[in-house]
Amino acid sequence: MTNNSNNYFSSDFKLGILGGGQLGKMLLYETRKFDIHTKVLEASKEAPCRIACDEFVLGSLMDFDAVYNFGKQVDVLTIEIENINLDALEKLEEEGIKVYPPTKALRTIQNKATQKLFYTDNNVPTADFSRFAYASEIEDAIENGGLELPFVWKAAQFGYDGQGVKVVRSIDDLKELPVGECIAEKMIPFKHELAVIVVRSVSGEVVTYPVVEMEFHPEANQVEYVICPARIDKIVAQKATEIALKVSEEIGHVGILAVEMFQTQEDEILVNEVAPRPHNSGHYSIEASYTNQFEQHIRAILDLPLGKTDSKVAGIMVNLVGADGYTGEVVYENIAEIMAMDGVTPHIYGKKQTRPFRKMGHVTIVDEDIDEARRVAQKVKETIKVISK
Amino acid sequence: MTNNSNNYFSSDFKLGILGGGQLGKMLLYETRKFDIHTKVLEASKEAPCRIACDEFVLGSLMDFDAVYNFGKQVDVLTIEIENINLDALEKLEEEGIKVYPPTKALRTIQNKATQKLFYTDNNVPTADFSRFAYASEIEDAIENGGLELPFVWKAAQFGYDGQGVKVVRSIDDLKELPVGECIAEKMIPFKHELAVIVVRSVSGEVVTYPVVEMEFHPEANQVEYVICPARIDKIVAQKATEIALKVSEEIGHVGILAVEMFQTQEDEILVNEVAPRPHNSGHYSIEASYTNQFEQHIRAILDLPLGKTDSKVAGIMVNLVGADGYTGEVVYENIAEIMAMDGVTPHIYGKKQTRPFRKMGHVTIVDEDIDEARRVAQKVKETIKVISK
Repeated sequence: MTNNSNNYFSSDFKLGILGGGQLGKMLLYETRKFDIHTKVLEASKEAPCRIACDEFVLGSLMDFDAVYNFGKQVDVLTIEIENINLDALEKLEEEGIKVYPPTKALRTIQNKATQKLFYTDNNVPTADFSRFAYASEIEDAIENGGLELPFVWKAAQFGYDGQGVKVVRSIDDLKELPVGECIAEKMIPFKHELAVIVVRSVSGEVVTYPVVEMEFHPEANQVEYVICPARIDKIVAQKATEIALKVSEEIGHVGILAVEMFQTQEDEILVNEVAPRPHNSGHYSIEASYTNQFEQHIRAILDLPLGKTDSKVAGIMVNLVGADGYTGEVVYENIAEIMAMDGVTPHIYGKKQTRPFRKMGHVTIVDEDIDEARRVAQKVKETIKVISK
Repeated sequence: MTNNSNNYFSSDFKLGILGGGQLGKMLLYETRKFDIHTKVLEASKEAPCRIACDEFVLGSLMDFDAVYNFGKQVDVLTIEIENINLDALEKLEEEGIKVYPPTKALRTIQNKATQKLFYTDNNVPTADFSRFAYASEIEDAIENGGLELPFVWKAAQFGYDGQGVKVVRSIDDLKELPVGECIAEKMIPFKHELAVIVVRSVSGEVVTYPVVEMEFHPEANQVEYVICPARIDKIVAQKATEIALKVSEEIGHVGILAVEMFQTQEDEILVNEVAPRPHNSGHYSIEASYTNQFEQHIRAILDLPLGKTDSKVAGIMVNLVGADGYTGEVVYENIAEIMAMDGVTPHIYGKKQTRPFRKMGHVTIVDEDIDEARRVAQKVKETIKVISK
């Protein structure tokens, strides 16, 4: 427990947040609850964090000077997105600014090839993969027999929102890939995709949230529901939690670490990837958990005691994405209809323009009974539609 | 259900909030969640709503022009405090601005003498009282035998935060009273003080929250805990809910109406007073309820379907007030210690200066077991202290 926690609740202390997107916006609810002074750096002046922070600074997160100069003006620095200039962070750390997660952890995670190598180096189970400096090398590898179709292509850097990941089934598919550094990962015919959020405070207190399950649409192969708790065997849940804790310890993050995993047909657990910040798989916690992931991240990076991670009720999250075929000024069709259903809370991210599959918000459904929550979640999904005017 | 609910979730719609205090700040969390454009009128530029609203306008809520000009720029107007220029509101209503709660309801409530007369006119049970145009008339009434000591003096207008209410036990106590319009109310030796939050939407949907109980300190005679659900007989809870519903219907509010009541030694229910806005007795709902009172108020005034009012878990609220003997820059002593307790969430209002008994925040304690929540609440109260540097 921190000895000077009172400092955070005074006007002298400043928390810097790198990134002003939707995750930052949800972090800001919690900083306001605790009356913590915040300063946000973000490249877009239309960003959701523009309001609700105490100070908003325009600047690129990839620009050394922008990040460095911003960081010098705060006491603790955190992130809401991984794509940050890490050299600037490192220099800030050297000069005594508290950076959480630490730059070292971000270096491991930011590049997906580095992240995968880290798993194999540390005996963390993960899907087999090959690393390529250029996408053009992939075709050679296939011809040499060094790589088999199908596989999952992942850009090594700067993927977001489903971009940067593609299933490659034929040589033809290769033509559409960007040219840069990438990995080719063995496709895992998994039983479930799972995630565990691990939280680690500055002084080393560690807690985990219950295992959540991503339920996929049987045909579209897209995540439809994030379900807490996962409807899986206890032994598997325990294994997943242990592996998430091992990853957390090896990476040495501070704050939230969301660990995404596959449960194979043989009930093996393979780590897919991690995010060192509040994560989509933890959004359910706002309505369902004793302590939501955003408050928990703040507690962790300010070295306050961590909160209880249990759920009050079962929680299911549905992402609100732009419907296919609609581009333009957004309309949330039937939003009143879903709000009439018990235990349903929409979160609207405030993007004015929709386009196919753009993340526009999410909806949480909570109920004492997980099966009832699942039924309502399906009704929500069938009712609301994100279209354009 | 509204037919044009989509309008609220677009950039054209503007919600005006009169008052920029702590209640407004908590309302703003919800408007941000739904991405509703907000505009706040408030006299103090240091107010908690200064950030998190889309537009902040400096101006007095009692000034006709300030309120009128502000109101003309929004589509729906609501309040976070009752002390508003009602003539301006009335004119805005006449000119087509949607004002919720309606001015008529506010006229009934704003003046406590009018509010009491309203109860007797509408057969709502309430403590006996006398009304005085000037406090100086009280002494005559006592001498004439028209009023007996002790009684509860209440200022007819503009009381806040426990000011404007005093127990008068002797002729000497009269000297300390302000001169203006007031009421003298019979002291009720109540068993419990209870409150019920009733919510009414524009189109008339009505829901109630569970009855809550204010537990008093046995010696200090101050509310120590707001407890949901109240630990009272079901029949009494039902009676309290029915009376709250009757008051709600007669007053014709839209949005939250918090109805405070006494349960007498004979299990009679007497209405004490009401507040037509989110209320201290409903703060527990942020952590404990399926739909918190702030989201519910927004749903009601935008004519969206009302949310489920049940609790996920038992909730207890403790007010954080400045400790006696401390004035100056605030320090929250032992805040980390209470955050280490299960299910404890502090809400810090962000006032930089503390003084004896000033409301500086509140703490919510939730648990599946109400008795455990009560034990933790006591530990919280014994641990945290709001002092000065």
